[in-house]
Order: sequence, then structure tokens, then C-alpha cells
Amino acid sequence: MMDRIEYLRKQVRDIPDFPIPGILFRDLTTLFKDPRSVEVTTDLLVQRYAGKGITKVLGIESRGFIFGSILAYKLNAGFVPIRKKGKLPAEKVVSTYQLEYGEDSIEMHKDALVPGDRILLHDDLLATGGTTVAALNLIKQLGHFDISICFLIELAELGGRKKIGPDYDVFSLLSY
Amino acid sequence: MMDRIEYLRKQVRDIPDFPIPGILFRDLTTLFKDPRSVEVTTDLLVQRYAGKGITKVLGIESRGFIFGSILAYKLNAGFVPIRKKGKLPAEKVVSTYQLEYGEDSIEMHKDALVPGDRILLHDDLLATGGTTVAALNLIKQLGHFDISICFLIELAELGGRKKIGPDYDVFSLLSY
Repeated sequence: MMDRIEYLRKQVRDIPDFPIPGILFRDLTTLFKDPRSVEVTTDLLVQRYAGKGITKVLGIESRGFIFGSILAYKLNAGFVPIRKKGKLPAEKVVSTYQLEYGEDSIEMHKDALVPGDRILLHDDLLATGGTTVAALNLIKQLGHFDISICFLIELAELGGRKKIGPDYDVFSLLSY
Repeated sequence: MMDRIEYLRKQVRDIPDFPIPGILFRDLTTLFKDPRSVEVTTDLLVQRYAGKGITKVLGIESRGFIFGSILAYKLNAGFVPIRKKGKLPAEKVVSTYQLEYGEDSIEMHKDALVPGDRILLHDDLLATGGTTVAALNLIKQLGHFDISICFLIELAELGGRKKIGPDYDVFSLLSY
């Protein structure tokens, strides 16, 4: 497994000063475009969640759609998009979270989940955890569910894992 | 095949007057959340493109990421996100297209493609074809490539297929 993790780590491209000066952006497009990385990432995540009875994979717009949907396919689960405000057409729940300046919100359809669903929540990146906590808040509005959470990359020094708290199984493929 | 197509058609939810009065929105979230639909959609599209030597699947943000990435995985190709402006961190090409009021642009990394790539361009919906033509323009800026295009849904009366023109293999799973 460590060899494969190191292979993936080499596919991540570091871009200094994006989107603003002082930020080192971890660019995953170099990993996405590499077929072996897509396969290895899928295998490592599926290996972790296969047999756990996951019925819905929730992907956070928009980069969380990429491996979120592959995982749904491989786990024989449904895929649920958590979207930015105003994009979903039917009855929905809303959750607002703080940005550095101002706030934003995400939404999920009310009929996205049914009682007994076992959830895998996926996003590409765990930074401060604000979006993840907002997504968990969407799920809570629809009932009590068993929830696992996975990321491709975790920026450990930003404390997102602590913000999510101890109630969930949280896994990141690569940690910085 | 027709049975499976009819099964998928039943999973699409019609929402009147979204996003504005007079528009009948074809909501695919009901299809995405159904594991059998994810499997059937994947099988039908993979059956069409397997063995064609596809090396890159390009998905248009953000709903084109969903089956675009599953197809990349299944075809052992790389996945390339075509994104809204300002999201991509490295050197990129830009293409602008008209909206009903004003204009918008999409972007792709310059290093997303290499000579000899065989491309499958994917979006969930073909309506007027404006976004698709803008995506084709991005690809052209990077060279001459063999390109196939697939959609989940085509709104045939809007003339998108004609706008794309006769130079490409265009396929839609469901047509309205």
C-alpha cells in the first residue's frame, strides 16, 4: 500500500500562491488525468469501504463528484450530489458555513436519503473542515445515519479532522 | 437495450418551471441516486466506447464530472475536468460562450492533453450546444484530436446536435 500511496503523492502538483499569495495549492488534475492514479485511488478506497454496506455516496460539488461517483459505481451504491446554492430543483435542505470573508451555503435534496442508508461522504480535500461540517449538517436534517467520510488529501495542520469531531470514521488517502 | 433505456427514462424526474417559469427541468438526481441506474448507464456507455482506444475523458463542470469520471475509470483513461473560470491553477486555455443574457467562459489546463490522445467529451445534458461548442474550442486550441461526444440526455428540439456539426460522433442515451 505505501508504494501505491507514494505513487499517488508524486502525481499531485504543488502550485504556489493560488488562489491567493501565500497559499500552496495541491493540484489534483495531474492525478485525475493519469489512468493508473485513477485505478490506484479507486482500488485503495474501495478496499476500505467494500463490504460495509454503503448504500449512498455523497459527493460535494464539484471536485467531490469525481471520485464520489466512481465509488458509488464500485460499491453498488447510489450517488448523491451536494450542490452549491440554487442548483437543485426539488425540495431540499440547506446548510450555511463561514468563508474567510462572508458565508456560503450548500444544499441536498430531501429525497436523497432514506431511513437505513449507510453513507460515505466524499470530498477531494480536507482543509479547515468547514464544508464537511456543513455537509454533515445537511445529513442530520434528514435523520440519523451511519456516516463514513473520505478525502483524497488532508491538510493536517489546518485542523479539519478535529473540527469534524470524533463521531465519524474519517480517512484521507494522502496527508500533508 | 430498449428495456434498459426505458428503465433509465423512468428515473428522470420532470420539474416544471425550473430554473425559470416555462422551463421543464429534467432532473437527473433521481437517476444518480439509484444504484441500478448508475450501473446500467455505465454499462451502456462503456459498451459503446470500449475498444476505441479512448485515452482521456473530458467532463464539463459540474454534472459532467459524474459519469465522466466513471467512464474514465472503466475505459482505463485519464479524467480531465473542464472548469468554470478561475478554478484551475495552472496554465490553461479559455473559451467564451454566450448565455441568454451576457456570456460565460470555461477553461482547461494546457497540459491536460498530449499528441495522440483519443478524447471522449462528456456532459450530462445537450441543450442548445453552446457549452459543448465552447469545450470543443478548448480542445482545438491544444491541437487536432479524434473526439467522440456523449450525453445522458439530449433535448432534441433545441438543435444542439446541429450546432455541434457533422465532424464528431455524438451520442445521447436519452432523447426528448
